[in-house]
Amino acid sequence: MAQFFSTSDADFDDRFVALLGAKREDAPDVDEAVAGIIADVRSRGDAALVELTAKFDGFDLSAGAMAFSEAEIDAAIAAVPEAERAALELAAERIRAYHARQMPEDQFWTDETGAMLGWRWGPVSAAGLYVPGGLASYPSSVLMNAIPAQVAGVERLVMVTPTPGGQINPLVLLAARLSGVETIYRIGGAQAVAALAYGTETVRPVDMITGPGNAYVAAAKRRVFGKVGIDMIAGPSEILVISDTDNDPDWIATDLMSQAEHDESAQSILITTDAVFGEAVMASVESLLKTLERREIASKSWRDFGAVIAVRDLGEAAALCDEIAPEHLELCVANPEALAANIAHAGAIFLGKWTPEAIGDYVGGPNHVLPTARSARFSSGLSVMDFLKRTTLAKMTPGALAAIGGAAETLAKSESLEAHGLSVRARLDQLNEGAE
Amino acid sequence: MAQFFSTSDADFDDRFVALLGAKREDAPDVDEAVAGIIADVRSRGDAALVELTAKFDGFDLSAGAMAFSEAEIDAAIAAVPEAERAALELAAERIRAYHARQMPEDQFWTDETGAMLGWRWGPVSAAGLYVPGGLASYPSSVLMNAIPAQVAGVERLVMVTPTPGGQINPLVLLAARLSGVETIYRIGGAQAVAALAYGTETVRPVDMITGPGNAYVAAAKRRVFGKVGIDMIAGPSEILVISDTDNDPDWIATDLMSQAEHDESAQSILITTDAVFGEAVMASVESLLKTLERREIASKSWRDFGAVIAVRDLGEAAALCDEIAPEHLELCVANPEALAANIAHAGAIFLGKWTPEAIGDYVGGPNHVLPTARSARFSSGLSVMDFLKRTTLAKMTPGALAAIGGAAETLAKSESLEAHGLSVRARLDQLNEGAE
Repeated sequence: MAQFFSTSDADFDDRFVALLGAKREDAPDVDEAVAGIIADVRSRGDAALVELTAKFDGFDLSAGAMAFSEAEIDAAIAAVPEAERAALELAAERIRAYHARQMPEDQFWTDETGAMLGWRWGPVSAAGLYVPGGLASYPSSVLMNAIPAQVAGVERLVMVTPTPGGQINPLVLLAARLSGVETIYRIGGAQAVAALAYGTETVRPVDMITGPGNAYVAAAKRRVFGKVGIDMIAGPSEILVISDTDNDPDWIATDLMSQAEHDESAQSILITTDAVFGEAVMASVESLLKTLERREIASKSWRDFGAVIAVRDLGEAAALCDEIAPEHLELCVANPEALAANIAHAGAIFLGKWTPEAIGDYVGGPNHVLPTARSARFSSGLSVMDFLKRTTLAKMTPGALAAIGGAAETLAKSESLEAHGLSVRARLDQLNEGAE
Repeated sequence: MAQFFSTSDADFDDRFVALLGAKREDAPDVDEAVAGIIADVRSRGDAALVELTAKFDGFDLSAGAMAFSEAEIDAAIAAVPEAERAALELAAERIRAYHARQMPEDQFWTDETGAMLGWRWGPVSAAGLYVPGGLASYPSSVLMNAIPAQVAGVERLVMVTPTPGGQINPLVLLAARLSGVETIYRIGGAQAVAALAYGTETVRPVDMITGPGNAYVAAAKRRVFGKVGIDMIAGPSEILVISDTDNDPDWIATDLMSQAEHDESAQSILITTDAVFGEAVMASVESLLKTLERREIASKSWRDFGAVIAVRDLGEAAALCDEIAPEHLELCVANPEALAANIAHAGAIFLGKWTPEAIGDYVGGPNHVLPTARSARFSSGLSVMDFLKRTTLAKMTPGALAAIGGAAETLAKSESLEAHGLSVRARLDQLNEGAE
């Protein structure tokens, strides 16, 4: 059972700080092993991939089986039931429509000196998407990672996923096809990240790697960062629900458990203006946990990291929320827009009781890859922008250089960077000669 | 003397790959030392800062001298010569005008199901700017880091800078004042980064840390990343100039040396369609290197990492440029806009021979903090966006949930996430009851 406390408790501050500071992940230190794997893939290429895949995934990659053939993908997809296919297509369509609006515009203008200034956006040339195997192989995550890349205009989009014993989720292949993935390699772990970053005989290197993974994948992404771009390294999932009294406790209980069932380290918190309602939600969670398929995971998450906090008013709730900076924030209150306006830090906000967070995981449209562990204070969910980069442009005319070049020369001298100043002075001198 | 080669050389590919792969930085491995410093600041706070500052900077921080007082700043700024003050003010004004245009807009819309979707942007609450001491203490970098934060609306902007022997560059203090820095702490190194990330009795923690620094600072930024946001970890500076024949070799030589003088590891490359012009630039560089104040640094950079490459045409030049993905790109050709349109990867482009790169370092307007070491393939220069984060929003109506909730439930089931499905189903059931 989760803890229950109130802002009017004498020990509230201590309990809240303890809740925020709870160490929720005990990632094993695999950095040294990962360094070895990356070095192996860099030096031996495909041979290392074949060996490591046999060792970790029990799968034989040799004889040209590195990538799925079109025929293999076709066959797997053909077996997807119609309802699932339709649901995935609806999700893809809605995610695409949302992300298409994120495309930023180039800007160019001429300032008062006659200088042309501006910037333009362009896609990374190639992106690689990591998809975990086994239980955490989520087709929805394929859409959430690949569609922003596709919308951004990434020319070459590839995917890597381990296939332990040759198993693959057909919905993952369908999701890849719906979102423009060109090639799917049967590799996973740190070796797949290394192959994407450095390339092998078969795998061409990419510029950007995104997607979730285990501790090995996370450590490998950290290590190749700089050589290629990476998305955030996500921690366990979180939800904060803020509710007033006018809610069905069963609805809120399922919303809390929809995070708790992800992972024993997930965190579900309810902040409510009504302590009695909070008690009712706790009771409903206990009842739900008797039957939930993933009750073992959800119970541990709820027991170790769950909390119900009673507050005096929604102002208090907003202030606590900004301390938590939750990944997912559900506002089940009468005027959710007004409350949202008082909150600065959250990855994604779900407004009103008709918007369970699970809608955002699949078909809402916004991305479900969101900042965890309080990082919503300074970072954002995955978007089209992650697959774009900006180039700034400037063009001086002789007149513009005459207007501002002197200041550049002065500052260069003050920073003892003589050649900087000379590069401006040489041009200014020619202008002065021309003017004489 | 830099190397000179041509795309028509038989061994061109090997030489170009070697040029790209040259290891340009030999950063000492200080990670273990940095881990110790961070742990010390976390556990002992101000006491650790006082001790480490005495040890590394020879400066006594005790007795309330951690932050500059307003009177100290006033006195230092009063001594700045008028020409330098005016130049810095012009730079600040132009940088502010450029970055103000980067503010992204919030978007909200209602889709065909009646769902409200969108996102909003908000600033990080507090940002910390690292400014190196000594030779690399550049007032222009203060402006380039602090003004984007100020434009973004960051509420609390602080600066840390070591003051070895109590020395501080008055222009650095003026730049801080021009760009809204609230407090300036006399601390540097890994200990300053730790203080900004975790806080001490005197230093309040921030959410985002930016700014250049030595190997200790870079290692500390890597270590606190996740706890706070950081900007990129910049490598040595680079310039690529692409020129046709119609240029003054002396201008191009000063442009190349304006990067080379930064750092022995800097890289300056000229690609030209005219080999004879390339030879003339090399001769001009040799002549310039006889007198340049920083000739020792610039000569080493030019000798070890410089290159002049002759190409058959500008198409070849564009292709090589995209392999290099330079931090700074100068296009000294007749039609620089046409050439820029053929280039995908560069941090900043300077168009035409009247736009020396040094203009961009100071007064052009665009940011001079730019991606190095080929990372312009996937990342961008510093901007207002680095101090903003995006929160996505979604609001379902009963009608919208009825339209798309079923698909979410189907996908939740296919991913074996029962509570996800139940949280949607509970609401759909109530809608169905209402409809009966």
